[in-house]
Amino acid sequence: MKKLMHLNGFVMFGPMNHSVGSWLHPDSRVADSFAKPEIWQDLARTLERGKFDAIFFADTLAAFGNYRNRMDEALTHAIQFPMHDPTLIIPMLAAVTEKLGYAVTLSLTYYQPYMAVRKLSTLDHLTKGRIGWNIVTSAHVAEAVNLGLEKMVPHTERYKRADEYMEVCHKLWNSWEPDAVVADKKTGVFVDASKVHPINHKGKWFSCPGISAVEPSPQRYPVLFQAGASDAGRDFCAKHAEAAFGVQLTTRALKSFADDMQGRLKKNGREPSSLKYIWGIQTILGGTEAEAKRRHREFNELVPYEGGLALLSGHSNHDLSQYDLDAPIEDIEVEGIQGLLDIFTKMYKAGDLGKDKLTMREVGKIYGATIGCPQIVGTPEQVADQMEAILDETGGDGFNITPTVMPNNLKEFVDEVVPILQKRGRHRREYTGDTLRAHLNQDVCG
Amino acid sequence: MKKLMHLNGFVMFGPMNHSVGSWLHPDSRVADSFAKPEIWQDLARTLERGKFDAIFFADTLAAFGNYRNRMDEALTHAIQFPMHDPTLIIPMLAAVTEKLGYAVTLSLTYYQPYMAVRKLSTLDHLTKGRIGWNIVTSAHVAEAVNLGLEKMVPHTERYKRADEYMEVCHKLWNSWEPDAVVADKKTGVFVDASKVHPINHKGKWFSCPGISAVEPSPQRYPVLFQAGASDAGRDFCAKHAEAAFGVQLTTRALKSFADDMQGRLKKNGREPSSLKYIWGIQTILGGTEAEAKRRHREFNELVPYEGGLALLSGHSNHDLSQYDLDAPIEDIEVEGIQGLLDIFTKMYKAGDLGKDKLTMREVGKIYGATIGCPQIVGTPEQVADQMEAILDETGGDGFNITPTVMPNNLKEFVDEVVPILQKRGRHRREYTGDTLRAHLNQDVCG
Repeated sequence: MKKLMHLNGFVMFGPMNHSVGSWLHPDSRVADSFAKPEIWQDLARTLERGKFDAIFFADTLAAFGNYRNRMDEALTHAIQFPMHDPTLIIPMLAAVTEKLGYAVTLSLTYYQPYMAVRKLSTLDHLTKGRIGWNIVTSAHVAEAVNLGLEKMVPHTERYKRADEYMEVCHKLWNSWEPDAVVADKKTGVFVDASKVHPINHKGKWFSCPGISAVEPSPQRYPVLFQAGASDAGRDFCAKHAEAAFGVQLTTRALKSFADDMQGRLKKNGREPSSLKYIWGIQTILGGTEAEAKRRHREFNELVPYEGGLALLSGHSNHDLSQYDLDAPIEDIEVEGIQGLLDIFTKMYKAGDLGKDKLTMREVGKIYGATIGCPQIVGTPEQVADQMEAILDETGGDGFNITPTVMPNNLKEFVDEVVPILQKRGRHRREYTGDTLRAHLNQDVCG
Repeated sequence: MKKLMHLNGFVMFGPMNHSVGSWLHPDSRVADSFAKPEIWQDLARTLERGKFDAIFFADTLAAFGNYRNRMDEALTHAIQFPMHDPTLIIPMLAAVTEKLGYAVTLSLTYYQPYMAVRKLSTLDHLTKGRIGWNIVTSAHVAEAVNLGLEKMVPHTERYKRADEYMEVCHKLWNSWEPDAVVADKKTGVFVDASKVHPINHKGKWFSCPGISAVEPSPQRYPVLFQAGASDAGRDFCAKHAEAAFGVQLTTRALKSFADDMQGRLKKNGREPSSLKYIWGIQTILGGTEAEAKRRHREFNELVPYEGGLALLSGHSNHDLSQYDLDAPIEDIEVEGIQGLLDIFTKMYKAGDLGKDKLTMREVGKIYGATIGCPQIVGTPEQVADQMEAILDETGGDGFNITPTVMPNNLKEFVDEVVPILQKRGRHRREYTGDTLRAHLNQDVCG
C-alpha cells in the first residue's frame, strides 16, 4: 500500500500568500478582500472538499524595514504586510468546516507560555481538535522594537529559552488530569481540585506557578509543527515537533534536510517515523505542458524585483539594496544568504531557472516568486508525478502548498490534481479521523 | 420621543456567567458545553433576534487563589474558572450573525499596545465593524504571577501607564491615512507609503516606532468601554471611554456614579452626552409576580456561600475565610469591601434582601448570586417598568444583562421583555446601522 500524501494550504492572513507580486495577477481576488472572512471561508471549504489535512497560516507581526533601511518597498509591494492576526480568522473557518485542520504560527517571543497555552487550548476546543501550532522563535527585529523588546534574545540563547518554553507548555497541558472536570450538579463540584496540579515552574526564563486556564481539550495539545532551518532550530525540531516544515529549493536539499534530521531524532531517542516531513512547494498547472510553462513564466514575471529583495532582506536581516543590481551574483558575496545564492547559481548553470543571466535583480525576482520553494510546473498528471517523486526521493510525508494566485491556484489543485492522487492511492478520499493529529498520523489511504 | 435602551448580554467564556452556582440550575446548559461554539452561537442568534447592541465578554486569566490561600474553592465552584479566551469565540459568533456587536475584555497589562491594536483591528475587519473593547488594567495577582510579571504595577501608576497605553493605541489606529491602501494592480502599489506614518512613540512605559500591522478597519478603532470604579479608574473612563459600564447594587449608587462622572467629563472638556452609561443587572422573570419571586428565591438559594466568598475574596484581593461565618456583619470590619458591606447592611435593614440575618455566610450567597448587580424580579411588564425607572432615575443609557441561567434566562428576556420595550418605544425593532458604534450611538428608536 502506498504512503498517503499529506496536503496543507500554506498561506498568510494578508494580501501576499506567499509570493511577492501574486496579488498583481489578474485572477487574484485577495487584494481588496483578504481582511474579510469570505475568501478564506471559500478556501477552507475548497480544501476540505479536497481532503487536505489543514490550512497552515504563517505569520509575522511587523513590516520589514531592512531594505534601504525603510519600510517603503515592503509597503508598496505588500511584502508580508499588512498582516492581520491569524488566530482570529481560524474560528471563522472552523465555523464553516467540520474536518479540515488549522495550523497557526504563534511566536514564543511575544506570548508568555501561559497565554499561548490558553489560546491554543481554547482554539482546540472551539475547532473540536483541529488545531496545530507552528512554533517560531522570532528573529524579526521590526517585531521586537514594536512589541517593546529592548533587544533580541541572541540566537543560541533563543533556543534554550524555547526548550524551557515548551517544558512550561507541556506542564500546563498536563496540569489537569483527564477526569478533573466533574461538572456534577448533584454534588456541586465543577472541578475536582485534587485532580489539578499547580506546576510551580520556576526556571531561568519563565516563572509559572499555576494550572492551565483551559480545561483539557480534544487533542490535549495542538499538533506541533516547526520549521527551524538552523542548527539550533533543527535540534529544537528533533526534540519537540511532530512535523517538520522544510523549505528548500531542490529535492537534493530537501533530502539532505531529512537525512540530517534522522540523526537528530536518534540523539533524542525518537523513532525515525515519529517526525513527519512537510515540504513547501508551489504548483502551477496547465491543460498542456506548454500552457503550464507559459503560466509559470507569466507568474514569475509579475514579481517586482525590489519586492523580492525587500523580502529576502527581511528574511536574512541584511540590506540587499547595497549591491549592484546588474552584476553577476558570482561576483558578489552576501553574508547570511550565500548558501541560497550558491543554490541559485547551481540551478542557473544547470538551466533550471530559464534565465540568461543571474544578477541580484534576478535573485529578487526568483526569491520573490518562490520564497525558496520548488515550483512544480506541468499538467495535473505531471504535477502529481513530480510530487510523488519528491516524496519518494526524500522520504517526505507531504506538502505545504503555497498558492500562486489566491484562491484559484489551490482550487485548481483540488479539482485537477487531487483526483489523480486519489486514484493513485496517494491521497485520502474521505477523512478517517476527526482531529488534525488523526489526519497527520494517517499513513495510508486505507 | 423616548430614549432608546441599549441592551447587551454580559457573559464570560466559561461555566459561570457571572453568578456563582448558576451552572447548578437544572435548566443550565453551560456546564458541559461552554467550551464548544454551539451554545454561544445560539445565544448570539437569540440576542440578534432581540436587537441587542452586543454580547459583552468579561474575562480573567487565572483562578483566584486568595480564599484560604488556595484555588480549591474557586475550582470546586467554577468561580470565573476555567476561563477560555473570549477573543477566539467572537469570530465564531460573528460568523452566524450580521448585526450583533461583540465587546471583549483585553488587559492593558498582558498585551503590548501594538498587539492589542492588531487583535482588535483584525476583529473589527472580520466582524465588519462590530467590535468593542472593554479596557481593563488588571489587578488580579494570580494572573500576574502566571504571566511572568515580577510584581504588579501599583494602582496609581497603573492608570498613568494606561493613559500612555491608550495614547499609543490611538497613534497606531491613526498611523494609516484612510486612503493609504491603494491595491492598484496597474501601478503595482499596494500601500501608498507616503500615507502611512510611523508613530515613533517613546514614552515612560512604551516604545513603539512603527505603524499598525492592520490596515484601517470599518470602525477604525473599537467602541471603548470601561468599568473602572476607583477614583483613578473613573478619571481614566472620563478621558478615554465611549461607554461606562457601572456595577452598583442600588439605583441610588448608580445615580451617584453617573453624577460623579459628569464632573469628570467636564474636566476633560467632554459633553455630558458623550459618555453612555451601561448598568449591570440581572433579570428574573415569572408569569406572575409570585412565580418570579419563587424563581428569584430558588436561584439565590443555589449559591454555595463559599463560592461567593471565594469570588469576593478574589475581587477584593483579601482572604474572607478568616471571619466568623455566622457573626452579624455589623460586628465585622473588612478592609477593601466595607463600602459593599454597608450597602448590604442598608438593604438588609430596609428588608430588601429578604433575609432574617446578615452574616458573612449570607454575604457570600448574596454576592455570589448578584456579583453586585441589582436583581430585577417580576413579570415581564414589571421588569420592563423597573428597567425604565432605573434609566430614568439615573440618566443611564442601557444595561449589561448577566444571565442567571444560561442560556434560557436571556432567551426569556428576548421573548418576553423585548416586545414590551419595543411597544413602549424604548427598544429598537430593527437595527438602523451596521456597526457596534452605530448601535451604541442610536439614541431614539426612530
